[in-house]
Amino acid sequence: MSDIEREVHAAAERAGDAAADLAPLSRAAKDAALTAIADALVKRADEITAANAEDVARARLDGTSEAMIDRLTLTPRRIEAIADAVREIVDLPDPVGESLRGGVLPNGLDLRQIRVPLGVVGIIYEGRPNVTVDAAALCLKSGNAALLRGSSSAYDSNTAIVGVIRDALAGTEVPVDAVQLVPGRTRESSLALMRARGLVDVLIPRGGGSLIQAVVRDSTVPVIETGEGLCHVYVDAEADLDKAVDITVNAKAQRCSVCNAAETLLVHEAVAEEFLPRVLTALAEADVTVHGDDRVRAIAAAHDSPATVVEAGEEDWATEYLSMDLAVRVVPTIDEALAHIRRYSTKHTEAIITDSLKASRYFVSRVDAAAVMINASTRFTDGGEFGFGAEIGISTQKLHARGPMGLTEMTSTKYIVTGDGHVR
Amino acid sequence: MSDIEREVHAAAERAGDAAADLAPLSRAAKDAALTAIADALVKRADEITAANAEDVARARLDGTSEAMIDRLTLTPRRIEAIADAVREIVDLPDPVGESLRGGVLPNGLDLRQIRVPLGVVGIIYEGRPNVTVDAAALCLKSGNAALLRGSSSAYDSNTAIVGVIRDALAGTEVPVDAVQLVPGRTRESSLALMRARGLVDVLIPRGGGSLIQAVVRDSTVPVIETGEGLCHVYVDAEADLDKAVDITVNAKAQRCSVCNAAETLLVHEAVAEEFLPRVLTALAEADVTVHGDDRVRAIAAAHDSPATVVEAGEEDWATEYLSMDLAVRVVPTIDEALAHIRRYSTKHTEAIITDSLKASRYFVSRVDAAAVMINASTRFTDGGEFGFGAEIGISTQKLHARGPMGLTEMTSTKYIVTGDGHVR
Repeated sequence: MSDIEREVHAAAERAGDAAADLAPLSRAAKDAALTAIADALVKRADEITAANAEDVARARLDGTSEAMIDRLTLTPRRIEAIADAVREIVDLPDPVGESLRGGVLPNGLDLRQIRVPLGVVGIIYEGRPNVTVDAAALCLKSGNAALLRGSSSAYDSNTAIVGVIRDALAGTEVPVDAVQLVPGRTRESSLALMRARGLVDVLIPRGGGSLIQAVVRDSTVPVIETGEGLCHVYVDAEADLDKAVDITVNAKAQRCSVCNAAETLLVHEAVAEEFLPRVLTALAEADVTVHGDDRVRAIAAAHDSPATVVEAGEEDWATEYLSMDLAVRVVPTIDEALAHIRRYSTKHTEAIITDSLKASRYFVSRVDAAAVMINASTRFTDGGEFGFGAEIGISTQKLHARGPMGLTEMTSTKYIVTGDGHVR
Repeated sequence: MSDIEREVHAAAERAGDAAADLAPLSRAAKDAALTAIADALVKRADEITAANAEDVARARLDGTSEAMIDRLTLTPRRIEAIADAVREIVDLPDPVGESLRGGVLPNGLDLRQIRVPLGVVGIIYEGRPNVTVDAAALCLKSGNAALLRGSSSAYDSNTAIVGVIRDALAGTEVPVDAVQLVPGRTRESSLALMRARGLVDVLIPRGGGSLIQAVVRDSTVPVIETGEGLCHVYVDAEADLDKAVDITVNAKAQRCSVCNAAETLLVHEAVAEEFLPRVLTALAEADVTVHGDDRVRAIAAAHDSPATVVEAGEEDWATEYLSMDLAVRVVPTIDEALAHIRRYSTKHTEAIITDSLKASRYFVSRVDAAAVMINASTRFTDGGEFGFGAEIGISTQKLHARGPMGLTEMTSTKYIVTGDGHVR
C-alpha cells in the first residue's frame, strides 16, 4: 500500500468513526451545525476568495476558457448564495428515523423499518467549488460523513472551504471528521478512494460522462451512476402540435448543456408533414442545428425551411450532444419509437406528446427510464422541480435510487424488532 | 471476446428483450405463468429426477459427503414441495405498479413514483436445485427476467428444471427467454455474466461467503451482497437473565449453519457472575463449544461449569463459525459492547437483551446493522418470519435493500410526470 493509499484509508476510517457518532444525532444538532457552516462561510469569505484567486490564476496560466474560469470563480456574492443554499437544506425535513413499515407480527414481535444514514459517502466531482459545500451539507443533513474529492483545478478553493467547514463543526455536536477532503490531488488518491471497499459505503460521481464511466469502471465501492442523459421527445400521431412545438424547443434549447435536455426528436409519420415544418422553424429561431434523417431533410427542403438541417447518421442517435444540436427522425409507429428509445436511451428521461390516453399508457408502461414525461418537457426531471429541495444528482441506474436523489435517497434502512424473550 | 462470452452476452440480450415484454404484463398473466410452471414441474417430475440422478451419481464418484448429496437429491415429493413454493409466490401481491409517491406540483404537473421491475436479474448460486425454481419464480412475479447460474454439481438437474420451466412458459404470455440458464458450466461463463454490465441490471449471489466475495470482487454489474452474518447477542446489565439464556441458546443452536445464527455473546460485567454459569450450562446441554475470554474461563472454572470452554483469541471475534461454537466475552460497558460490534459485525443482525428502555434506545440508535433485535433471537431476521413471503436473500449492504429481500426489493422505481404542455 502506497503512502497516499494509507492516507486515504486513514481518512476513510476517521470518516467511519465520525459517521458512527453522527448517526444518532438529532435534526436540531445537525441543523445547528449546518447553520454554523453557513455563517462561517460568509464570515470568512475573504479567505475563500483569496484561495480561489490562486486556482483562477493557475487556470489562466493553463489557458482555460473564460466560461470555465467563470464557473470556477468565487465572489463574496457567490459565497452568500452558497451559504443560502446551506440554509435551504436546514429547512428541509430530516429523513433519518422516518418509519417505512411497521406492525406487529403474528407471534407478537413488533417490526419496524426505519431510515438510517448510509454511513460514509464519497463524492468525486468536477469543476465548481460550490459543489464542495452542497455535497457536504446534503451528507450532514442526512447523517452521513462526507469524503470529498474535487477536481485539482479547484484544489485551493476546496481546501479553504473544507477548512472553514471543519472549523465551524468544531463548535457543534457534529464531529469535525464528518467532512474531509480526500488527501492528495493526483489520480492515485481518487483511485484509493474508489478502492476503499468496506470503509466507504457509497461513491457518487458528479460530473460528465467520462468521469462517471471511469468511476464505475475502477471502483470496488458501490457507485451510484448519475447524470448521463440521452433523452428523447416522441411526438405521437395524436399529439397537440402547438404543445409539441413548445415542448420540443424547451426540452432542447432552454438549457442545452444539462442531462435532462432532449437530444433526439422522434416524430410519428402521420403528423410529420404538418409538424416538422413548424418545429423546424421554431428550432431555427432558437438557433438549434437539426440532424435529420432522409424524410426530415426531404420535408425541410420541400417547405424551404429556415432551419439548418444536416444529415443524421447512426452516431447522431447515440450522441448526448449537450449542445444546440438535435437529432430528428420520422418513425412509422409508436412501437418503432419505443424500439429506437430502447436502443439508444440512457434511461434518464423520455417524453411522449399525445392526446391519446391509450398511447400514453402504452408508452409509459413500455419505456424503461428514471422518468417518463407525458405532455411535459424533459427538463422537469430535477430534484428542485420535483419538490425534493436540493439534489445530489440524478441517478440513471436502477438499484437504490432512480431519478433525482434528494435527502431521502441518501439513506439506507434498518429493521428494529422488539420482543419479550421471543425465540424460534 | 471468447465464444462463451459471446454466448452469455447473447443470452443476456435475449433476457433484456424478454424483460421489456414482461414489464407491462398484468399480475394475472404472471400468476398464470407461475401456475403453469408449478403444474409442469409436478407432471414432469420423472424427467427431473432422472436428470438429478446423473448429478447425484457424479457427486458420489467425486466423494461428496452424504449431507451434501442429501441436499442435492430431488425426489417426487421434494418436487411437489418446490411446486408448492411456486404456488405460494402466486398468492403474494405483485409489487409492480405500486405507487410510492404521488401528488400535484405547484405548477400543476402530476408527479407519481411507481414500482417497476429491475429488468434482467442474474443469480449465481450454489448447491440445491430448488433454488433454480425459487429464483426463477421470484424474478417472474416481480416482472424480471432471470439469468440463472447454478453450481456445476447440479448442472443436469438445473438443465432439466429450466427446460420444464421454459416449456411451461411457451403456453403463456410470459416470454420463454424470461428464464434462462447461463450457457456453459465453467468459471469463464460465470465471469462473463459478472462482466455483462449494461446487459444485466443486478447480480445476486446466493451461497457462502467465498462465493459472495468472489462475485463482489469480479463483477462490474451491480451486486447485492447477501447472507454473511457475524451476529452478536449483547446481554445488558439490566437484562432478564431467563430470557437472555433462552435467546442465547436459540440464537446459537436452533440452526447453527445459517447466516442469522449468533456467533458471539457479549455479557455486561455487572451480570457476568450470575448469568455466565447459567448460560454456560444451557449451552453445554445444547452441545455448544464456548470460546471464552479470560473472565469467562475464570467464571466457568470457579463454578465447575459442565460447558466446554476453550480460549478465545482475536480470530474468534472475527469468525462466522456457522457451527456449534460460540465466542463469549465480558464487557465493562454498553459502549464497549457497541465498539466490539462495530469492529467485528458484518452488519446483518445484532441483539440486545435488556429491560432498560434507555439501554435499548441507545443500542438501537448506535448499532449499524440490517436488523436490531431487542429481547428476541437473531434467528428472526428472515423474509418468512418478517411476513414478506419468500425471500431471494438477506442483504447485508446498505444500497438498494437491507435485510430480507422479498418481491418488493426486486423492483426499481420510475417517475411518471403528466402535464398539459408544461415547459420550463
